[in-house]
Amino acid sequence: MNSEVRRTLEALKNGEISVDEAMLSIKKEPFKDIGYAKVDLHRGVLQGAAEVIYGAGKTPDQIAGIIGTMLENDVQTILITRFSKESAEYVMKFHKLDYRDDAKLGIVGEIPEPSGIGRIVVATGGTSDLPVAEEAAVTAEVHGNSVTRLYDVGVAGLHRLLSHMDEIMSASVIIAVAGMEGALASVIGGLADCPVIAVPTSVGYGASFGGLSALLSMLNSCSGGVSVVNIDNGFGAGYLASMINHIAPVK
Amino acid sequence: MNSEVRRTLEALKNGEISVDEAMLSIKKEPFKDIGYAKVDLHRGVLQGAAEVIYGAGKTPDQIAGIIGTMLENDVQTILITRFSKESAEYVMKFHKLDYRDDAKLGIVGEIPEPSGIGRIVVATGGTSDLPVAEEAAVTAEVHGNSVTRLYDVGVAGLHRLLSHMDEIMSASVIIAVAGMEGALASVIGGLADCPVIAVPTSVGYGASFGGLSALLSMLNSCSGGVSVVNIDNGFGAGYLASMINHIAPVK
Amino acid sequence: MNSEVRRTLEALKNGEISVDEAMLSIKKEPFKDIGYAKVDLHRGVLQGAAEVIYGAGKTPDQIAGIIGTMLENDVQTILITRFSKESAEYVMKFHKLDYRDDAKLGIVGEIPEPSGIGRIVVATGGTSDLPVAEEAAVTAEVHGNSVTRLYDVGVAGLHRLLSHMDEIMSASVIIAVAGMEGALASVIGGLADCPVIAVPTSVGYGASFGGLSALLSMLNSCSGGVSVVNIDNGFGAGYLASMINHIAPVK
Amino acid sequence: MNSEVRRTLEALKNGEISVDEAMLSIKKEPFKDIGYAKVDLHRGVLQGAAEVIYGAGKTPDQIAGIIGTMLENDVQTILITRFSKESAEYVMKFHKLDYRDDAKLGIVGEIPEPSGIGRIVVATGGTSDLPVAEEAAVTAEVHGNSVTRLYDVGVAGLHRLLSHMDEIMSASVIIAVAGMEGALASVIGGLADCPVIAVPTSVGYGASFGGLSALLSMLNSCSGGVSVVNIDNGFGAGYLASMINHIAPVK
Amino acid sequence: MNSEVRRTLEALKNGEISVDEAMLSIKKEPFKDIGYAKVDLHRGVLQGAAEVIYGAGKTPDQIAGIIGTMLENDVQTILITRFSKESAEYVMKFHKLDYRDDAKLGIVGEIPEPSGIGRIVVATGGTSDLPVAEEAAVTAEVHGNSVTRLYDVGVAGLHRLLSHMDEIMSASVIIAVAGMEGALASVIGGLADCPVIAVPTSVGYGASFGGLSALLSMLNSCSGGVSVVNIDNGFGAGYLASMINHIAPVK
Amino acid sequence: MNSEVRRTLEALKNGEISVDEAMLSIKKEPFKDIGYAKVDLHRGVLQGAAEVIYGAGKTPDQIAGIIGTMLENDVQTILITRFSKESAEYVMKFHKLDYRDDAKLGIVGEIPEPSGIGRIVVATGGTSDLPVAEEAAVTAEVHGNSVTRLYDVGVAGLHRLLSHMDEIMSASVIIAVAGMEGALASVIGGLADCPVIAVPTSVGYGASFGGLSALLSMLNSCSGGVSVVNIDNGFGAGYLASMINHIAPVK
Amino acid sequence: MNSEVRRTLEALKNGEISVDEAMLSIKKEPFKDIGYAKVDLHRGVLQGAAEVIYGAGKTPDQIAGIIGTMLENDVQTILITRFSKESAEYVMKFHKLDYRDDAKLGIVGEIPEPSGIGRIVVATGGTSDLPVAEEAAVTAEVHGNSVTRLYDVGVAGLHRLLSHMDEIMSASVIIAVAGMEGALASVIGGLADCPVIAVPTSVGYGASFGGLSALLSMLNSCSGGVSVVNIDNGFGAGYLASMINHIAPVK
Amino acid sequence: MNSEVRRTLEALKNGEISVDEAMLSIKKEPFKDIGYAKVDLHRGVLQGAAEVIYGAGKTPDQIAGIIGTMLENDVQTILITRFSKESAEYVMKFHKLDYRDDAKLGIVGEIPEPSGIGRIVVATGGTSDLPVAEEAAVTAEVHGNSVTRLYDVGVAGLHRLLSHMDEIMSASVIIAVAGMEGALASVIGGLADCPVIAVPTSVGYGASFGGLSALLSMLNSCSGGVSVVNIDNGFGAGYLASMINHIAPVK
Repeated sequence: MNSEVRRTLEALKNGEISVDEAMLSIKKEPFKDIGYAKVDLHRGVLQGAAEVIYGAGKTPDQIAGIIGTMLENDVQTILITRFSKESAEYVMKFHKLDYRDDAKLGIVGEIPEPSGIGRIVVATGGTSDLPVAEEAAVTAEVHGNSVTRLYDVGVAGLHRLLSHMDEIMSASVIIAVAGMEGALASVIGGLADCPVIAVPTSVGYGASFGGLSALLSMLNSCSGGVSVVNIDNGFGAGYLASMINHIAPVK
Repeated sequence: MNSEVRRTLEALKNGEISVDEAMLSIKKEPFKDIGYAKVDLHRGVLQGAAEVIYGAGKTPDQIAGIIGTMLENDVQTILITRFSKESAEYVMKFHKLDYRDDAKLGIVGEIPEPSGIGRIVVATGGTSDLPVAEEAAVTAEVHGNSVTRLYDVGVAGLHRLLSHMDEIMSASVIIAVAGMEGALASVIGGLADCPVIAVPTSVGYGASFGGLSALLSMLNSCSGGVSVVNIDNGFGAGYLASMINHIAPVK
Repeated sequence: MNSEVRRTLEALKNGEISVDEAMLSIKKEPFKDIGYAKVDLHRGVLQGAAEVIYGAGKTPDQIAGIIGTMLENDVQTILITRFSKESAEYVMKFHKLDYRDDAKLGIVGEIPEPSGIGRIVVATGGTSDLPVAEEAAVTAEVHGNSVTRLYDVGVAGLHRLLSHMDEIMSASVIIAVAGMEGALASVIGGLADCPVIAVPTSVGYGASFGGLSALLSMLNSCSGGVSVVNIDNGFGAGYLASMINHIAPVK
Repeated sequence: MNSEVRRTLEALKNGEISVDEAMLSIKKEPFKDIGYAKVDLHRGVLQGAAEVIYGAGKTPDQIAGIIGTMLENDVQTILITRFSKESAEYVMKFHKLDYRDDAKLGIVGEIPEPSGIGRIVVATGGTSDLPVAEEAAVTAEVHGNSVTRLYDVGVAGLHRLLSHMDEIMSASVIIAVAGMEGALASVIGGLADCPVIAVPTSVGYGASFGGLSALLSMLNSCSGGVSVVNIDNGFGAGYLASMINHIAPVK
Repeated sequence: MNSEVRRTLEALKNGEISVDEAMLSIKKEPFKDIGYAKVDLHRGVLQGAAEVIYGAGKTPDQIAGIIGTMLENDVQTILITRFSKESAEYVMKFHKLDYRDDAKLGIVGEIPEPSGIGRIVVATGGTSDLPVAEEAAVTAEVHGNSVTRLYDVGVAGLHRLLSHMDEIMSASVIIAVAGMEGALASVIGGLADCPVIAVPTSVGYGASFGGLSALLSMLNSCSGGVSVVNIDNGFGAGYLASMINHIAPVK
Repeated sequence: MNSEVRRTLEALKNGEISVDEAMLSIKKEPFKDIGYAKVDLHRGVLQGAAEVIYGAGKTPDQIAGIIGTMLENDVQTILITRFSKESAEYVMKFHKLDYRDDAKLGIVGEIPEPSGIGRIVVATGGTSDLPVAEEAAVTAEVHGNSVTRLYDVGVAGLHRLLSHMDEIMSASVIIAVAGMEGALASVIGGLADCPVIAVPTSVGYGASFGGLSALLSMLNSCSGGVSVVNIDNGFGAGYLASMINHIAPVK
Repeated sequence: MNSEVRRTLEALKNGEISVDEAMLSIKKEPFKDIGYAKVDLHRGVLQGAAEVIYGAGKTPDQIAGIIGTMLENDVQTILITRFSKESAEYVMKFHKLDYRDDAKLGIVGEIPEPSGIGRIVVATGGTSDLPVAEEAAVTAEVHGNSVTRLYDVGVAGLHRLLSHMDEIMSASVIIAVAGMEGALASVIGGLADCPVIAVPTSVGYGASFGGLSALLSMLNSCSGGVSVVNIDNGFGAGYLASMINHIAPVK
Repeated sequence: MNSEVRRTLEALKNGEISVDEAMLSIKKEPFKDIGYAKVDLHRGVLQGAAEVIYGAGKTPDQIAGIIGTMLENDVQTILITRFSKESAEYVMKFHKLDYRDDAKLGIVGEIPEPSGIGRIVVATGGTSDLPVAEEAAVTAEVHGNSVTRLYDVGVAGLHRLLSHMDEIMSASVIIAVAGMEGALASVIGGLADCPVIAVPTSVGYGASFGGLSALLSMLNSCSGGVSVVNIDNGFGAGYLASMINHIAPVK
């Protein structure tokens, strides 16, 4: 953003634009307002990366409209998260859509080729953590990452996890998804040599208190390299994992 | 207690005692009141097992007095818990005392020979958990158990724990002591085939909230056979482990 | 598991298997993957004990399929927990099933003869705690234990509890199930001489905070020999009680 | 207060006082301002009952001064709560004082003869609850009540409590003081037929969370007739018990 | 209960009953077991007071059956709490019932004449607190008390409360029912000279956290003579108020 | 109110009214009781300002009736909050109503001309905060304020907020409405020179704990001039903003 | 700030400054860096208002140095908050200082003449709330406000508060400072017609949980016009009150 | 670790080692036991990276001894965290030590040349967050990273943060350290295009609840790419940042 300001200022100095135009330029919002939504376009347009629509609280009509605006602006890949099946079925009448029922996700356009530094591993403690894990995994894939899934490898059956040491040791980022006691993140953090993104889930009952137990457990991990996102925030974990997997020197 | 009631009633029926004597007998408290304390004697006297003095909040003089009363009543082994070094040094002027600085415990008399079904393993996540673990271990020893200590085997370095599979697989009860994320209990619960008593500790900082994180983690353990005692309650875990290790058919 | 590793290593040394086969053997998972589930078989097959299916979150078809796989592998007794009536009625079309409505449990096969050291007592504070208590009781029975039920013996009517002193004094393990103030565990812990497993329930309203009040109460029990499992975790209590009731020396 | 307003209004109507005098009269505060404190006098003066000084946060000089002002105004009995020994020793230079070290209370003047309907019983779970219990007991005595103390009758040793059934059944109000799991209130509430005032104490450690566990336990009591005051609020319990024990018809 | 034990013991001594009969007598439970419920009868039968049925979790058939058993045993007045309208309409087919929709209460038999020392005042902060207040008021009436209702007198409009000073000053017990900030209890406690039973309600939203805010507020009341029952526990407050209003010397 | 008391007293002194009439006058409640509601009238009648009906928990018939009573008493503007669409549609049969679906508000009568010192800005972090924001905005408008809406200017896209510096710098009061991390209040508080009323919303999931996260964040704001109202309390914020915007010297 | 940007841009357009100078200007921080602190100067210099030094965590030398820098830059009035007596005594060696022990505040320079719209009232529930109240009161005075103090007017003695109706009705802003149950804010909010800033204090014990009880109580206030700042944040309340009391139309 | 197992297995197959030697090898712990500590050596030895000593709870003698052992094993750089000044001064008698008082860190040996992909930025909300920030910054430097410090750039003075857009836009990882409302992480997350590691600090008072407010705020961040570590965990953040900054493809 800073360099845009500089360009604007130089244009102003050169007399190419007026003071008010400069003011306006600085204020110009990098999104298209289509009434019921302000559609972010910059990243998809400029970098060829995916744009994301947070589906919760939007009507099927609104989602269809936003997709349309994005496509008109040459966005290549669109990810719709927290997207109900009913809503997706309606949107499919207008746009070609790859809907993933388990993760409540929709994808418009092509999933790009993996472009990251290495592989991302998504591991879960149990099968109930799958929806959150799939949200993370597909988010990472849509942002150009190769993803390996290790599901149902919770610490109650340690042999299942240890039988996947190869995948764990060769990951560049690991997303550990677990509810209940959330011990998976610490165990993986102790085994792996790469960043571990811990995602507590609301899976459990009683003293899990809607994911609080797993959350605290993960924050207190005694293993190095573990950080935590919000309860059930698969999208956030997948997005961050992709960011880490695409780190590059800034010129 | 019930059978005592029956005996009292039969004595009453046989005219051996009066109604008031029966009332009195039922009300008779099985402890000796020495002014500043009501000294429990029954277990130590009848069964040769250890009596326990909870040292916190008692003056050195009071503790010395209670020990004296117990010894006069033929108690063989006395365990004093939460016993400060200063207090212990004063008490040593009057009674021979084996003081354990790390666990803040004192022992009067002989530690009995192990009489339990198997061995008790006490494992800790880190070295900071040692005081709680020693409280558990010595409590178990004083109550007639053979104890194996596995300290500093937290899940951040899983190889340390796995290198002790022999001890884990051959235990009859395991006490898992851990603070921070408390994952040790779940991992051991998944590996072992015996009851696991989880002891959360107040070790940690920030979001460990004084042991709350470890406590919730242990309560939510997805491994079978795990139960939990209060934060830092090493004595309770050692006492329960001994109870389990001495289970016998009731005639 | 350790001895299996040793056997594998010896086979390798003797040239009976290759390095890769050894690697594979160590990694081999002791469950059968049937697509939608990884079916644990080892315990049921090897030891004749019950296998458990956690019914929550599984479709009737999946449960029926898992039962089928288990039966084909000679599992004698199968316990399905958190099993809705609707789901059970569907599964009954394929397998003979003993369904317990109050505990939301299903049993396939024979309940084994009691083989434990003594009897297990399951006590509840009120009638609303019954579903959790039945989950505990049937779990214990299915794992080979003789169970005595003492329901509605809460501390508000102490005479009800005291009229069952015989059962309490002759138990080898007691499961105390209570919501609201959860005082039952402390009172029983003070009366009994055996391990007490406390199960807080979510019964109550207002400041019971979904079982938190009973949970804290039980963790702070001033009676010796009391440990706690998760809120409403009847299965965990029954499973642990059976484990305690079957303790045997390890050769 | 209402009748005072009426009297003031009538005096105004009769021309005995002016409008401003009436305004003033309504505003007149029933305490004497001595600079560092507003000394309540009305109750002690009018009814012969005790006045109370909350000692926490007051200097010895201030307390001595307040006592002096009260004595000058013919207050018969003064209770100073949360009163440190050091402060009391200073005050004793000026006023005759009965200081109770265990309850951190001081009494000036005579303890009045019991004038209540019946007896008040103060029971504690353990000896550590004694300071709170004594605060309650002495507060009740100073307000004209006969008090029976039943200390160290916690539910872990039910026989101790049951051996005092006579005192429990003949009380007009019972104050149940307990920390840790706070079960005492429920058990007494179930045994007694009179109001039970439950006082949670901060005695305990770990998951007692400074008295929260006992507080929640007492609020969720399944016994009828139990109500709760703040953690460690012995004074409040003693004051309320006296109020209940002195209930009389309002003409 | 104690005197019954004595009578039993004397009968035993006199040879009127055998030891086993004595054991049995002590154990005899003062309720009638009708399969799905253990019906308490003693109080209603012996003292003419009301028996209470906690309706939550009971089927209409069960409630009708319990009422029938009670009537057969000459219970004069029966109060059914937490009693849904649907359930009540079914029960009315079998028994004459006075159903109070706002309090979800049903009454069978006559409401007894007031027999207490004075009047009970039930005050609420707002109109939403009415169901809890009515539960308290009717409970008190059914137990023989005269009740005055002061509804919607919350502290936000202090003049409404102050206009009822007469009722407040002439009460023997006051029940203060309030949600949100729960300030009503402190204000009434400061105005009145009688015991105040505070009932926090779950009325409110956001940071009222289901009644927690009102609960804490009431526990911290700086006014003397205030004690607290569980959130929404109108029955408990009414029952305790009646107990206080009927206090009598124990011979 | 004080001056009314004085007038009453003067009338009494002058013999214009009797003592009882004075008592009555002081007690007279400034609302009209129409059976199911006590309708506040004083403000609307005396000052021409809006009266407010809290719609939650009132039947459509009751709301229609209250509106009718108010209109008969010359109330010019009526605001109905927490007013469901169904209820509004029924009320429209009897009264002309401007219903705002997004804020669940109804307005009867004219919105008065802005009469405040300056403008009120209502800003939201996201679009999901809109219902709460609209409740605040319309409440302020109905009470005579000019309102500027800045929606969807959360800190994740700081440029959106910064592009509205003109509105922020020229506000006399700002209402900052945000859920999740609630950072908007602090950022606006740092930018603006006027009072900021922070409204946490329950928007979010997982560790937002129903608005608790935003609430704590706003209470801890390091920016000067920020205060906080209850979660989702748009009405309270709008009402307070109007109060601030109408501050005038008191003669 | 916006207008500064505009001025910078116009200077750039006019060729008065270069692009880099413009960049620099925008970045220029309006404080003076003196090594251990970045001293804010703009407000004091430009508007003649007070500058504030947050004393906590600063050495006496640092505070003295910051004061020196401010005085050199013509700041007229300096307020130092959370300023220990020891630190103040050291600073007095270098600067003339008006130190307020009860509020832990220091003032350098003159307290300006009151310039606000009306008067600010600061009320407290008890005498222990005084330090927080004084922090609020002096902060308001230093920022040019006339302040009336109403201390020890808690709701337990409502007559004390009601005797100050004149002050309450004639305030332009009221700061209500209270710990424990925090009811003062609601009662004042119900009586007054001006904005009420509620300050919860950490005064209390047990279930006051360090001010949480008062905080929740104040957030749930059912009175209109009440908002809340952080626990013990007297400065924040005084600063906000001054802001409200100085509201002026923005041209 | 996996490849070590393979090497061990191949050595076994080749007859180079016995089965027991293989068992032993697998169990061999990669640390040197020096009695009071198990000194980790593997990373420092093999990779030239720093070894870390957690200083809390270790005596100066123990720390000196561990450093000695590490130096004997050719560890190049040693970082001692949570290291008190007193302890450091003692250790300096034996080893050359670079002690950082503000971060309570000690460094033995050379800080390695930066070897990461880009630069790490450490930003703080206020100056009180500096100790945690320095712990993060030095940890990152010791692990081979170039670090830029942006201290005191909290959101209350947004211009300070915006004046550092260049550093923010050119970072490869940003560590955002903030207490109180913790809004810094969200604002930076919205501005930057790289991973943001949020570190809540315990800075604050009242409703900051020891860092809980900042923690929740950061977990709920609406900005992409933000994850969170434990309260005050500067070391964890620095270590993770270094890990991310050194990500490389795994062959």
